[in-house]
Parts: sequence; C-alpha cells; structure tokens
Amino acid sequence: MSPFIGSASRTEAWRHLRLTLDDGVATITLSRPAKLNALTFGAYADLRDLLPELARDGSVRALVLGGAGRGFCSGGDVDDIIGATLAMDTGRLLDFNRMTGQVVRALRECPFPVIAALHGVAAGAGAVLALAADFRIADPTARFAFLFTQVGLSGGDMGAAYLLPRVVGLGHATRLLMLGEPVKAEEAERIGLISTLTEEGQAPAAAQALARRLADGPALAHAQTKALLTAELDMPLSAAIELDAATQALLMHSADYAEFHAAFTAKRRPAWRGR
Amino acid sequence: MSPFIGSASRTEAWRHLRLTLDDGVATITLSRPAKLNALTFGAYADLRDLLPELARDGSVRALVLGGAGRGFCSGGDVDDIIGATLAMDTGRLLDFNRMTGQVVRALRECPFPVIAALHGVAAGAGAVLALAADFRIADPTARFAFLFTQVGLSGGDMGAAYLLPRVVGLGHATRLLMLGEPVKAEEAERIGLISTLTEEGQAPAAAQALARRLADGPALAHAQTKALLTAELDMPLSAAIELDAATQALLMHSADYAEFHAAFTAKRRPAWRGR
Amino acid sequence: MSPFIGSASRTEAWRHLRLTLDDGVATITLSRPAKLNALTFGAYADLRDLLPELARDGSVRALVLGGAGRGFCSGGDVDDIIGATLAMDTGRLLDFNRMTGQVVRALRECPFPVIAALHGVAAGAGAVLALAADFRIADPTARFAFLFTQVGLSGGDMGAAYLLPRVVGLGHATRLLMLGEPVKAEEAERIGLISTLTEEGQAPAAAQALARRLADGPALAHAQTKALLTAELDMPLSAAIELDAATQALLMHSADYAEFHAAFTAKRRPAWRGR
Repeated sequence: MSPFIGSASRTEAWRHLRLTLDDGVATITLSRPAKLNALTFGAYADLRDLLPELARDGSVRALVLGGAGRGFCSGGDVDDIIGATLAMDTGRLLDFNRMTGQVVRALRECPFPVIAALHGVAAGAGAVLALAADFRIADPTARFAFLFTQVGLSGGDMGAAYLLPRVVGLGHATRLLMLGEPVKAEEAERIGLISTLTEEGQAPAAAQALARRLADGPALAHAQTKALLTAELDMPLSAAIELDAATQALLMHSADYAEFHAAFTAKRRPAWRGR
Repeated sequence: MSPFIGSASRTEAWRHLRLTLDDGVATITLSRPAKLNALTFGAYADLRDLLPELARDGSVRALVLGGAGRGFCSGGDVDDIIGATLAMDTGRLLDFNRMTGQVVRALRECPFPVIAALHGVAAGAGAVLALAADFRIADPTARFAFLFTQVGLSGGDMGAAYLLPRVVGLGHATRLLMLGEPVKAEEAERIGLISTLTEEGQAPAAAQALARRLADGPALAHAQTKALLTAELDMPLSAAIELDAATQALLMHSADYAEFHAAFTAKRRPAWRGR
Repeated sequence: MSPFIGSASRTEAWRHLRLTLDDGVATITLSRPAKLNALTFGAYADLRDLLPELARDGSVRALVLGGAGRGFCSGGDVDDIIGATLAMDTGRLLDFNRMTGQVVRALRECPFPVIAALHGVAAGAGAVLALAADFRIADPTARFAFLFTQVGLSGGDMGAAYLLPRVVGLGHATRLLMLGEPVKAEEAERIGLISTLTEEGQAPAAAQALARRLADGPALAHAQTKALLTAELDMPLSAAIELDAATQALLMHSADYAEFHAAFTAKRRPAWRGR
C-alpha cells in the first residue's frame, strides 16, 4: 500500500462494471451482456474514476480488461448515450467527450500494463478502449470496428486518431477510422492491432496468465517501460535518450536489478519484488 | 456553395490536368500519357492552385486522383524539370521545391478525402502524390519508386521523409527512400502502402465507387476524421484527446448525427447531408 | 578529407572493436566472440568516440556494423557491466547510461548510412544497436531480444522506446520491450524489423555489397536522406516540407544532380562523386 494516500476514500462498490483483485492483478469486466456491454455514462465515469484509484493504491501490478457474454464491448449505447447527447448543450457535450477521453488517458498513464482480453465485437468506444491497452489478446471471433463516422461523428474519438496510426500506420488507420468497417482478427493480427491470437474462447485465460506473469515479475521495470513508451511517442530522439538514461540510472538502484544479478550469479531464478 | 467566397475568381480551365466534377466527387486526371504523365511546372502549379480552390468552393466531398494511359505518374519530367532546374539560381530553386511541397500540403489539408487510383508506375513525385492521398487503391500492375536518390537528390522530397515512416514504419521507409528501388503492388500491400488491391484495370472504378460512397455519406464526419488524423500526427496524446473531445462535441450538434439517431430509431437507412 | 579538422588527433588504435576502412566503406566488427561480443565499458566508449571521428573525417560514405563469431552481440556484459553498475553512485550511473545513449545518437546522426549485418543473437544493447542502424540485413539465424525487463531494467534503453514503435508500431514494440522475449528472423521480417533476409551466413557479404553500392553512389543524397528521415520523425508536416524544399534546392546545385542529367542525356551511367 502506498504511503501517498490522502483524504479521498476508496470507492466501496463499482456499480457499472465488475472489479476483482487478486494479488496484484486487477480484472475489470464490462458486465452488461444483454447489451453486448454497451457503455453508459455510468460505465465511462467508473472507468475514469477506477483507474486513478487503482494507480493511487499502489498494489496493482497488471490489469485485465474484458467483457462478459458474447463480446468485448459494442461501444456507447445508442439509446442511453446517443439519444441523451442529442438533448445536451455545448458545455455538457464537451464534459461528456472529455470524460471518455480521460478514460483513454487513464489507460495510457496508469503505472501498470493493461491487457485487453478480446472476443466478439470491439466496436466504437469499445475498439478505442482495446486500442488504448498495452496488450490486445484476442481469439478468432474478435473483430474491431471504429464505426464513429457511421453515426456521423469523427473517427478521431478518445484519441483514436492519435493512437491508431502509431499502432498500424497512417494508411491502415485512415481506412479504419474513415470507413468504420469491421476488421476481423486475422487482418487485425496482420496489421499489428493484435498482440496475441489465441484459440477460440482462450483470450481471458491467456490474458490472466500474462497478467499473472507481469505482476509476479519485475513490475517496476514493466511500469517504467510503459511510461517511457507512452512518453516517447511525444518526444524528440535526443530527449528520449536522456529520459532513458535517467530511468535506467534510477532502476540500477532498484531491488530487482540487484536481485537479477544475485540470482544470475547463484544460477537460480530471480525472486522479483516489483521494486 | 460556401458563403466564404471573396474576390478571387474561379479558374475557368485547368490547362495542365483534367478535372471533372460529378455531384460532390472531383476527379483529377494527370493527362500526359505519352510521357507517362510526367509532371511539368504547369502541372505542379495547377495542383497547387486547384486543391485550395476546390476546398474553398465547398461542394467537393471526395477527390479521386488518377493518371491517363499506361501508368499513374512517372514523376518530374527529366527534360522539362531536371534540365530547367540546372539553370536556376538559389531563390528560384527554393520557389520550385516549395511549390511541390505545397501540393502535398494541399492534399493533406484539403477538407475531403483523397483517393489515389493507381496502376503502372508511381515514381518520384508521382509516388509522393500517391503517398499524400488518404487512400491508395491500386491494381496489380502498380509499382512505387521513390527514386530521388537515383537522380542525386534527397529521398525526403515533398514530405516523403515525414510521411513514409508514418505509413510503413522507419525501417521500410529508409530502404525505400535511400535506395529508390521499385516496390511492386504485392509488397506495397504487405507493408501497408496500399489501402485496397483490385483486379487488374479496376483501380479507377474502385476509386470512383469509394469516392461516391464517401461523398454520399456523412462527409463532414469524414472531413473531420481526415483533419484529426493529419493534425494528431503532430500532437501529443493529451492535446489530441482534447481535440477529439471538442470535435465530437461539435459534431454532436450536426445534422448527420441527429439523422443517424432518427434513422436508427425508425429502422431505416440514414439520409446523410454531409453537415 | 574534410578541411574542418581542428586540433583533435585521430585515434590510432581502437582497442575494443575492430575497424577496417576500404575506399569509403567503414566496417566495425564487435570482436569478443568467446563472450558473444558482450559489450564492455570500453566497447561502448569506443563506439561513442569512433562514430563522430568517422563523421569528422569525411571520407566514410557507408558503415557496416557486425559481430565476430556465433552472433552479433549479446548486449551488456553481465559481469563487467551489471556487476560494476551495482557499485556505482548516482552520478556515475547517469554517466554510464548517457554514454550508451550517445552511441545510439551517433548511429542516428552520423552522415552516412549504417548497415547492421546480423546473425545469431542481437540481445539487449545489441538489439538496440541493430535497431539504430538504417538497414538491418539478417540471415535466418538472427534473433532479437530486448531483454531489459528481464534484468529488472526499463525496456526503454538507449532510445529503444522511441525507435521501436516508429519501426514496428506501438503494439509490437510494447510486447517486445515489456516482455523481452526473442523475436526470430521470420517474425522480425514480418513486422518490419529486418530490411533484408539473406541465406544463412550471407548477411556480412550482403551488407558489404550494399555498403559498396551506397559508397559508390550519390552519397551526399544518401546522407541527406538519412538526416531528413531522422529529423522529420521529430517535426510537424509543414516544417518537414520546408526542410525538404531547402534540402532539394541545395542538392540541385550538387555535382551529382548535374551528373545525373548529363549521363541521362548521353544515355550512359552516372559517375557519382558523392558531392
């Protein structure tokens, strides 16, 4: 537990998603299977609030994000969200869209790797949640659809026009965001949108196995790797190299680095502490 | 027609390329087939001037760029351009190279998607024109050659050293720009340089079909998607997310967004207005 | 030989690597085969010092970087480097990590293309040296392993968290840097990490052939292409296009550009001078 806890209390119950914690592995499950886990205002708000709370807590070392039922997430609910936004004034619309963007920032900035476990549909905001994860583990039923233009909105939603070209290149990203057509698992793997393709139905187990491995490993090193990947997309080469140098100098004083050397010398496996 | 028309008159005739307009779809055809559509000073100047004129006009919602005859475009004409530049002084050389760069800026910044219809050769400046398009629809005869170094110039011409790494990655881009070797359609598709590979001879028809679909669709959403993809290559994540939020808030007051919801509720297809 | 030589003397003997010079082609061979060319403080320091010395000299037009024995480079030596860093204070650790970063900056900023000739292992810092090259020519025995997290360090080492996403995309880069698992030649080629895959044992010869071709070609054009690719990763589109325009205007006054035109007109091959 981190000593840097202030007055803010922990949320006792997350009403719009399911959270489990298991020895450093947090699992968030979007759980509205009758609606293909369509996102509501409450679900966005819970994701916005939960991720910084987990970050502050300090005990989470890996996060799995998955969906209950037939798919991962069909995106913003047409009735609950699109219908409601039609009646909103300018300030409220900005509040809503900033909130969804904050979810993506939280996924990119939280100090632990995020693994999306994907099956069935990942559409609209669901596709962007998956895109914002560090790993996308998918089974052959998984398909992405950045279908924003098909509802009359910009394909650049929640950072998608920033992230997707950096994952699959500008050519593929333009096609995917402009047309909003489904991308099946096979194509997604070919263009680099999927990290690991599993057997059908195996994405959740594979995601949990990776999360366990990451949480039991040199978790501070993983956290810094994520932070640097995120930061250096926005930095020039010379500054990135300086950041790398400072980060490695810092980690060379970490417990895990000393442990690696001790274990290597004793020809045993390292006992990582994540510090 | 846009109300934001000032004193500048529309150009009556484009002498160095062919332009057709068909209900929101503009088609520019490079038409110097005896020379494989080699570009002249006039062709560059017309591209530089035509694109902002179309943007100002406000009626174009998609653009197809193709070439007449055996190929798309063989690049700057060896006699008309290379020969002439050898006699130019420093200021004139800068004028020429800024003009060619302005064509690429215009392609990236015009408020409608650009579809390159590619067959045969796309070489030198022709390859960069194709690269600056949003979609590259090519048939199996298409081949790219960024052959600038082979004439003693930098592979970074007209933004190629900026764009190509963002489309195919730095490794492939270095190889293509440094060596200037031909990239056949098959490889171009594999590395993400082609959006759609068609049957032989079908690139123009496929490009027109996509342009028609884009022009008849939610064209304001397409335009904003393009603008955000272009802008967010140069923005940090946090700013990109803020831009996305503002853009979506804006589009949630658009006619097409309301139309999507009305059509969805009535179980009919949306009648897009592009506004 | 460049006239811009000051008081600094040339290094007579490089003790920690092997250097050969052959009519514009420099070859650096990591030569500690009993240790799989594990890097020592001396090897890093020699790479840091040698590259600017070659750049200053002005006669090198292409560089091959390879490894003697069974592989390219196994990275920082566990005993000589990891053991030693455990005893270093903060300032010294920063010095060390800045030195390794300077090697990567030197590889990216030297005014000639760098070709990594890869076989067997390219691990840790060895993988990053390869990554910083302009071309990676590898045989089927080649494998990359960015194994920094496996010793408790950040995957962002020596600029890897900057470079790798720009070569293979953010998704693959995250997986490779976070997990540190080996990437075999076949996968490396598929994701764009290898420029050319050769027959087994043929990487050094293929690298020499490419270096010879580059050195005998329009070498100033190659150097500018590299400089622009490096710089424009960190520039917005409009500035990149301005840089391209100025660079081409400059090169249109070069000897090689005039030579191309003369040779083309006379239907002979250009006699490149690299100026």
